[in-house]
Amino acid sequence: MSQLYASLFYQPQVTEIFSDRALVKYMIQAEIALAQAQAEVGVIPVSAAVVIAESADSALAHLDFDSLAVATGLAGNVAIPFVKQFTAFVKTLDEDAARFVHWGATSQDILDTACILQCRDALTQVESLLQQCFEMALTQTQAYRHQVMIGRTWLQQALPITFGHKLARWASAFQRDLERIHSMKSRVLTAQLGGAVGSLASLQQNGSAVVDAYARNLGLSKPSCTWHGERDRIVEIASTVALIMGTLGKMARDWSLMMQTEIAELFEPTGKGRGGSSTMPHKRNPVAAASILAAANRVPVLISSLYQSMVQEHERSLGGWHAEWLAIPEIFQLTAGALTRTLDVLTGMDVRADQMRANLECTSGLIMAEAIMMALAPKMGRMQAHHLVEKACKTAVEQKCHLQTVISELDEVKQYFSSEQIQQIFKPESYLGNIQAQIDAVLQDAAGERK
Amino acid sequence: MSQLYASLFYQPQVTEIFSDRALVKYMIQAEIALAQAQAEVGVIPVSAAVVIAESADSALAHLDFDSLAVATGLAGNVAIPFVKQFTAFVKTLDEDAARFVHWGATSQDILDTACILQCRDALTQVESLLQQCFEMALTQTQAYRHQVMIGRTWLQQALPITFGHKLARWASAFQRDLERIHSMKSRVLTAQLGGAVGSLASLQQNGSAVVDAYARNLGLSKPSCTWHGERDRIVEIASTVALIMGTLGKMARDWSLMMQTEIAELFEPTGKGRGGSSTMPHKRNPVAAASILAAANRVPVLISSLYQSMVQEHERSLGGWHAEWLAIPEIFQLTAGALTRTLDVLTGMDVRADQMRANLECTSGLIMAEAIMMALAPKMGRMQAHHLVEKACKTAVEQKCHLQTVISELDEVKQYFSSEQIQQIFKPESYLGNIQAQIDAVLQDAAGERK
Amino acid sequence: MSQLYASLFYQPQVTEIFSDRALVKYMIQAEIALAQAQAEVGVIPVSAAVVIAESADSALAHLDFDSLAVATGLAGNVAIPFVKQFTAFVKTLDEDAARFVHWGATSQDILDTACILQCRDALTQVESLLQQCFEMALTQTQAYRHQVMIGRTWLQQALPITFGHKLARWASAFQRDLERIHSMKSRVLTAQLGGAVGSLASLQQNGSAVVDAYARNLGLSKPSCTWHGERDRIVEIASTVALIMGTLGKMARDWSLMMQTEIAELFEPTGKGRGGSSTMPHKRNPVAAASILAAANRVPVLISSLYQSMVQEHERSLGGWHAEWLAIPEIFQLTAGALTRTLDVLTGMDVRADQMRANLECTSGLIMAEAIMMALAPKMGRMQAHHLVEKACKTAVEQKCHLQTVISELDEVKQYFSSEQIQQIFKPESYLGNIQAQIDAVLQDAAGERK
Amino acid sequence: MSQLYASLFYQPQVTEIFSDRALVKYMIQAEIALAQAQAEVGVIPVSAAVVIAESADSALAHLDFDSLAVATGLAGNVAIPFVKQFTAFVKTLDEDAARFVHWGATSQDILDTACILQCRDALTQVESLLQQCFEMALTQTQAYRHQVMIGRTWLQQALPITFGHKLARWASAFQRDLERIHSMKSRVLTAQLGGAVGSLASLQQNGSAVVDAYARNLGLSKPSCTWHGERDRIVEIASTVALIMGTLGKMARDWSLMMQTEIAELFEPTGKGRGGSSTMPHKRNPVAAASILAAANRVPVLISSLYQSMVQEHERSLGGWHAEWLAIPEIFQLTAGALTRTLDVLTGMDVRADQMRANLECTSGLIMAEAIMMALAPKMGRMQAHHLVEKACKTAVEQKCHLQTVISELDEVKQYFSSEQIQQIFKPESYLGNIQAQIDAVLQDAAGERK
Repeated sequence: MSQLYASLFYQPQVTEIFSDRALVKYMIQAEIALAQAQAEVGVIPVSAAVVIAESADSALAHLDFDSLAVATGLAGNVAIPFVKQFTAFVKTLDEDAARFVHWGATSQDILDTACILQCRDALTQVESLLQQCFEMALTQTQAYRHQVMIGRTWLQQALPITFGHKLARWASAFQRDLERIHSMKSRVLTAQLGGAVGSLASLQQNGSAVVDAYARNLGLSKPSCTWHGERDRIVEIASTVALIMGTLGKMARDWSLMMQTEIAELFEPTGKGRGGSSTMPHKRNPVAAASILAAANRVPVLISSLYQSMVQEHERSLGGWHAEWLAIPEIFQLTAGALTRTLDVLTGMDVRADQMRANLECTSGLIMAEAIMMALAPKMGRMQAHHLVEKACKTAVEQKCHLQTVISELDEVKQYFSSEQIQQIFKPESYLGNIQAQIDAVLQDAAGERK
Repeated sequence: MSQLYASLFYQPQVTEIFSDRALVKYMIQAEIALAQAQAEVGVIPVSAAVVIAESADSALAHLDFDSLAVATGLAGNVAIPFVKQFTAFVKTLDEDAARFVHWGATSQDILDTACILQCRDALTQVESLLQQCFEMALTQTQAYRHQVMIGRTWLQQALPITFGHKLARWASAFQRDLERIHSMKSRVLTAQLGGAVGSLASLQQNGSAVVDAYARNLGLSKPSCTWHGERDRIVEIASTVALIMGTLGKMARDWSLMMQTEIAELFEPTGKGRGGSSTMPHKRNPVAAASILAAANRVPVLISSLYQSMVQEHERSLGGWHAEWLAIPEIFQLTAGALTRTLDVLTGMDVRADQMRANLECTSGLIMAEAIMMALAPKMGRMQAHHLVEKACKTAVEQKCHLQTVISELDEVKQYFSSEQIQQIFKPESYLGNIQAQIDAVLQDAAGERK
Repeated sequence: MSQLYASLFYQPQVTEIFSDRALVKYMIQAEIALAQAQAEVGVIPVSAAVVIAESADSALAHLDFDSLAVATGLAGNVAIPFVKQFTAFVKTLDEDAARFVHWGATSQDILDTACILQCRDALTQVESLLQQCFEMALTQTQAYRHQVMIGRTWLQQALPITFGHKLARWASAFQRDLERIHSMKSRVLTAQLGGAVGSLASLQQNGSAVVDAYARNLGLSKPSCTWHGERDRIVEIASTVALIMGTLGKMARDWSLMMQTEIAELFEPTGKGRGGSSTMPHKRNPVAAASILAAANRVPVLISSLYQSMVQEHERSLGGWHAEWLAIPEIFQLTAGALTRTLDVLTGMDVRADQMRANLECTSGLIMAEAIMMALAPKMGRMQAHHLVEKACKTAVEQKCHLQTVISELDEVKQYFSSEQIQQIFKPESYLGNIQAQIDAVLQDAAGERK
Repeated sequence: MSQLYASLFYQPQVTEIFSDRALVKYMIQAEIALAQAQAEVGVIPVSAAVVIAESADSALAHLDFDSLAVATGLAGNVAIPFVKQFTAFVKTLDEDAARFVHWGATSQDILDTACILQCRDALTQVESLLQQCFEMALTQTQAYRHQVMIGRTWLQQALPITFGHKLARWASAFQRDLERIHSMKSRVLTAQLGGAVGSLASLQQNGSAVVDAYARNLGLSKPSCTWHGERDRIVEIASTVALIMGTLGKMARDWSLMMQTEIAELFEPTGKGRGGSSTMPHKRNPVAAASILAAANRVPVLISSLYQSMVQEHERSLGGWHAEWLAIPEIFQLTAGALTRTLDVLTGMDVRADQMRANLECTSGLIMAEAIMMALAPKMGRMQAHHLVEKACKTAVEQKCHLQTVISELDEVKQYFSSEQIQQIFKPESYLGNIQAQIDAVLQDAAGERK
């Protein structure tokens, strides 16, 4: 991934978690946890585990990343040359200890565990950003709960809603995403340790005890069995993150449409160098939306790659596993980037109440046809009301006048409603159904109160 | 989807759930639940709800599917012409009642709710098949827990495992899939009712009460707010099903590789007209695997389509929603088909213990190099043991003889181990690590016992 | 695929080509061509080929599709049970001839050839629809070449274009798609005949002569070698069709955005039952666009499935081949459906010149800022002009007045331009660059004239 | 993309073409071509174009990539801040010239043209690697044209082929891929220059002349109209590259299966640090295949992203265009990496003729059942021969003896064939059909000779 695009698509903390340097750091963490677990169980000397653990910080500084990169191409994964270099480094400290580095493990144990540790830390970032988006969406829901605007379906104006209702629906989606992350964690943040074929054969009778201690040392859940070839945990993590991305894409689509020159109801926050054009001064490019929509195009295909790669061969696979290394980091990075941008927009968005109001007038009252029909129905019967309003709409369109004008002049209407009453009926805020109740329900859900 | 391929890729019950007829049946179910909910709340007359409910069975027989199909192309969804036909039918029974059909709802309310009902019923089928696969995998785990075979990594022979260990890993994946279905149900099996823009405007102050009753009548959970444009529930359902498909693809890959003529460790159950060839009598085509692998190629891309389609516009979208209608049924149908085929193979598979044993000899003992090294290490030090075994391996390869023969003749070995002991070390069953403990853990998890 | 959705997403002729019945018809065609080729070369008796050829029509009526469907699930492909039934049918006519049905061929030969024949016929349909779309786009290009409208970038108003320019760009894309179809045909419409492993072993020294005659009889190109496992031809066909789908998706996106209530520049043709709403009389649902956008979401993932399935095993594969059967028909059907709908919209679209004109005024002249700057630049220098116009824009925005008003009052402008000249500069049609030349170039390309 | 994985998945030259530095270099190239074109046409002073052109080399060294990266996040694309920095740099050389940098162009003009230039250079690399693979495949085809091995279908042994036949099929696929690249070049390697909305409005009457000169200066074809929103060219390029990737994936699958311990017919070239395992000395990990198969999992989903992104809005889009920037480089890089690895394997592969021969004996003659049947058919009638051979196969399987032994003892056979003749029939090389003719046809195609 180009550095040039990093500030457009990514988020620094999550990008750092998936950096080459961090990957090696996580692999070292796995090796230390392994050595300590084996020392606890009595498989290797405690002194060896101590040396290995102490080498961690300095090791990272001493490893030669360039030669790691070259060797990875030959070995087929980065753990093989990493273990060689790390062992060599430990050997410079203590030759005996070096003999117990990576004892009984296979390269996939270290890479899978490092991947799970990366996912855990990246999930923490994603969860935190998501929580902030959720809270900001709730705040804005309350701020705009009565801000009337037109609701649109199939890209057509339909009936009025409030902007707060839109925000409440988004907040509700954020809450479901938070629940998903929460509910999967113990299932998926699981240590991997199985040796060459998952049997931990070289640890003989001590395998299970070592796995227990290893998982505990890393703060990961303990698998009932190795999962080198069963990749559902990895894919579940990615799917949950991808669901968030989908939600963000939906929001970005909405606000980019609301930013259209002709609609102009909402704008991304402005700033120097941001989305403007000197020769086209009216332009407000939805830069955040562009970035998020590109990510929302991309994450779904990366997810597809992961589902495809579940079809792995035998005890440890060829190619399918390798494909994960490219997809997981990007899914996290793009989603974290999109969360950051969404939070920014939710926080600083420029809401144009006047334009929301103006757009409600765009159809000269036709959007209120149903409202007047519903008001007339109890008086004259629904069929009659429907017929009358339909005719009035036609008249309004043909005569290019406001529906309220046409309706107000009808004797059938006058006999039931005063001019003030008709005016009231035509107010969009009079026709919002249970929107406030829905907003309350979302706020109560957020507060953990709704039954 | 071709009828010709139905028996190869699909499963009848789930295919039926997504048939045109069933879709209409579920839409009728939604309309009845709506009418009854509105009668309960007092929005429409109880008598109307009674007529609407009673019309259900006969309605299905009276609807004209051909004209529904034609009108769907014009209207853009099937609910619009369905509501027209259904209303017309109710009108033949009771003109007054007909006026209250679909009261206050939008076509998406009915289609989304019907889709959730389809998903619920299809999930029940999938869950049942999955449970059967899980149980059969557990049964076979126990049957083959001591059946030694070679473990393979990167398509290469590595170290011995037992066939039961492979089965236990699969069983464990099935259990996680069952947990996933269980844990998402209340979040995703949610009723949809919002009217044109999600506000239920025409129900005025009664919207929320109607939604409550509607959801209760259908046995679905009640949403805090409408979700016409926020599709995470739909995609979460599909993702969970797709994870199952990935797991099945992995298994089919494994057994198709084990069925290779040169390996011949496992065969799909035989039967008349199944996978044989008259002119190539040695062939045993893995027909079930072919079908499952094709499904495992396809479901991941259908999932991608759903994640892409989350980017929906405003209150109700254009195109994104439509794309779901094609993907959801296929994901369920293909996965249910693959589950059926997997259950069949797990149940009736033809396991060739002799060939598993024979393949362990394929490298003339080289697969046991690590075992002998581990046995020698405590006696002579690990480095020394490693060096000695490495040299012996080279000798064995060059002289094309068995590693055990070379090892047995080495004085350095003889001084520590008798010939019988060496023979014992070279037995694959002596080098299985904690496989039995893992199998026990999986069985305990299945029994709900493991801590 | 549901029948209910057929009229929304598909096109009848192409759907028919991929029907079960037609698939069997194409397989019969392949078998006949094979028998005739073998008779020509002298591999089988001419009399047998005659009987086989004569059986074609009646065979289709006599085959039992239900039992074919059941047997396909067991055999793993439809050709195996088809050949059995077809042979049995020929046997009822002539026992000797029956012995020579499918002589030396493998089931994949017949299915691949049938698939290529389907593709050829479906391509003919697609090409014809594409040609009609192309011609209609050219016609409309000419009709609207001077129809000024606003050009939009990043969903923001930018500078004026003409509607004919948009249409010309679309026409140009159609022409490239036509060229692609044309240029690939001889490479991809290739017969398949190789027997079990591609060697035509049972035909001994006659294999190549039979392949020649077989291809010639079918009007397909002759492969230099069998391609059972090398699927690039199949994927190239599908990719070319998918490119068309992408082009159509772009157009549908455009016109659905232009149909937005607030923009209202273009509408899909109306008709009874089409996209209207009785309670929301102002709505004009872009039904064709919804259908096309759903297809444009779906075809890209089906293409992904085909690229994935290229990774096939050995001489004939497992699963990868099977995955094609599901993807190819849908890609063609969805694209043909989208072409039909696009042609319909291109032909009958309702263009609102008044609204195009009105939208040009939406920014009160700001869209013409660059035009005035370019006009001033030669007089006062570009920097000076830029500075002056930028300031005028700010003034116009702050004072909510038209940019032309602000500009007209500036002494720096007045000294160079009269009021009439300024008015001329502010006319969108004065600032269209080389749009007419581009349109001419597209029309010349279409006529085959441009150098 | 991690540097650690670069040597595993990528190819240095193509990676360099898509580096940040090179992207900027290509943008500079586009700006220079633009200035020169405008000088030729008389739109800007020749002196300005000279300065701009001369600034190229030093500009690259002076640009601040870190601030470019930051500004890209705000601007939404890299061309906007690049133009600012580049203009500022030119200004340090010549203030007048600086005023004419990027004259009349939009950022997408420069980025699209830069992308096409990258694609052109990357295609040159891909084509060269492909040509080398093609030639090596031809060389190996000739070397192994008579090397008999078993052909496999559905992962089962079927009938004999030669290894040269497999290679010839691969060579034929390479040739088709070369033809595809060749045939699309003039259609897709097209300059982009349209200004904000494709009209080149600020160039007034000079737009088309400038586009002509611009395209000519860059050696690109000239578009009849701008294609900012019609992305078929970009997607066609990527599709063609992705087809190559599919072909490579197929080959890697084949050789990884042939490298299986139990099959051992072919090995990737060895080397220090490459695919071995010290504790599992028999392992020969297919490292190149793993890398290629991961790429073959990934490229199909990236392609899907591009087809999805064709659905762009209006004159220049939001998000769809951005998605291309991430997918195009990866598709090229992964495919170039896979080509390099494939060339390496084709060149240095370790072919085990003895093991190919041994595997032919794996079924104890059953693979030759069809051959003996075909030999007997002319003597005793096909039905009789089929019946006899089928029975003999059963006997051979039951008695675990060689089919040739059973057949040789049958009186019905003895009366037609001597023992020597039977031995001859059972030789796999006697039953290879038209394989040599196919190989010749592929070689003739390669030499451009076949009619």
